[in-house]
Amino acid sequence: MSEEKIVTAALIIIGNEILSGRIQDANLSYIATKLNDEAGIRLAEARVVPDIEAEIVEALNAMRAKHDYVFTTGGIGPTHDDITAESVAKAFGRKLIRHPEAYRRLVAQFEARGMEINEARLRMTNTPEGANLVENGISVAPGFQVENVYVMAGVPQVAHAMIDWLAPRLEGGKPVRTKTLVCSLGEGNLASGLSDIQDRYAEIDIGSYPFYETGNYGTSIVLRHTDEALLEKAAAEVADLMRSLGGEPRDKI
Amino acid sequence: MSEEKIVTAALIIIGNEILSGRIQDANLSYIATKLNDEAGIRLAEARVVPDIEAEIVEALNAMRAKHDYVFTTGGIGPTHDDITAESVAKAFGRKLIRHPEAYRRLVAQFEARGMEINEARLRMTNTPEGANLVENGISVAPGFQVENVYVMAGVPQVAHAMIDWLAPRLEGGKPVRTKTLVCSLGEGNLASGLSDIQDRYAEIDIGSYPFYETGNYGTSIVLRHTDEALLEKAAAEVADLMRSLGGEPRDKI
Repeated sequence: MSEEKIVTAALIIIGNEILSGRIQDANLSYIATKLNDEAGIRLAEARVVPDIEAEIVEALNAMRAKHDYVFTTGGIGPTHDDITAESVAKAFGRKLIRHPEAYRRLVAQFEARGMEINEARLRMTNTPEGANLVENGISVAPGFQVENVYVMAGVPQVAHAMIDWLAPRLEGGKPVRTKTLVCSLGEGNLASGLSDIQDRYAEIDIGSYPFYETGNYGTSIVLRHTDEALLEKAAAEVADLMRSLGGEPRDKI
Repeated sequence: MSEEKIVTAALIIIGNEILSGRIQDANLSYIATKLNDEAGIRLAEARVVPDIEAEIVEALNAMRAKHDYVFTTGGIGPTHDDITAESVAKAFGRKLIRHPEAYRRLVAQFEARGMEINEARLRMTNTPEGANLVENGISVAPGFQVENVYVMAGVPQVAHAMIDWLAPRLEGGKPVRTKTLVCSLGEGNLASGLSDIQDRYAEIDIGSYPFYETGNYGTSIVLRHTDEALLEKAAAEVADLMRSLGGEPRDKI
């Protein structure tokens, strides 16, 4: 894969519990960082969808056509609200089958632990036909992959274990490097000079983020690009801009 | 508005800093809860989009056609990467203007504080033509509303102040009530009985969420509906199911 190629991914977070506000997603930031740092894959968009098959299918089909990779979290457990496997099968027009290897492992583990093997638990071994398993060291409910779609758990410990296993196995481009400069100036003071720097370095993603904390007010300027030398050059200009306005740049809030 | 009408909203989170994993969204859960509890509006989906005009416009037009309300966070500051106002203007085919009231307030506040009024800061008073302002007590950068789209800040303190102001002013339906039952059983033990209960109470949203913590393993069952009496009735059945399987229900993890 060429060094210039930008490889993108979408994340589909499946879960009523996120949309209701009951719990806060704890996977997006972890997955985005892992994909970039270990696989050179950029998370380009994310969607949070409810536990409704038609909504999941629509998001899957839109995202898998638009991006190199699609990752999903949530909905792979044994209960009635876990409908991700069925939804992925539908999106790809594949049959839902009991995955032989997932089945073998689940039965072996549950027998070893002396836990009841029932129909609900066996549902966790359903995947679209032709799926490959995604490993994790925690849960017996496997994730799986169909073409460019990777299905992972919603529970953060399990989702993180799955992306930890996956990331080094995925093909991407160069990781994006980040350089952050912080100062006590307001965004409005930096804006004009920053815009000039952005114009000169159109290829660098330059973000400006204000922060307000008691006794601590200012702006973080975040520069992102794959080329570290280019990044350092632009960052030096941002540092000069800050100094010229009376704001000594530092690394952290 | 009829008590049965379900009023839905989408949230569009605008920001490269969320997609890069650099910072974690701290607005979705707050906004979802506020909308439900104070306005009877259900967050039905959310999207995280990058600071790219075409992506923002596409999300705005898809979401405003599909839902009663659309809320956005992010991109309303003074810097080059703040492009939400332009994007909303484009989505609605309206001109971008300097909002007279926003302009008057910004100038007054900056003069009072002895801060420089420059072109970048005045950009924060740009809105699509015909927009109404969204108030907040913290920042001079106003949010604004165009038809069913409400534009808010990304910085959590400001976003929360804006939705606090907005929520009691929006027309919705009945708030969804939540009843949560927790037990030390695995999801796979509850699944079959829970599915039966879901079949009998099809109108109730019943979610099952496993948790794994050191010395604390089990399942939370979350029931959601506008009718508290119906909710209590179904919750009593879930409690009975848990007891029948040897798991005493409790309120909290």
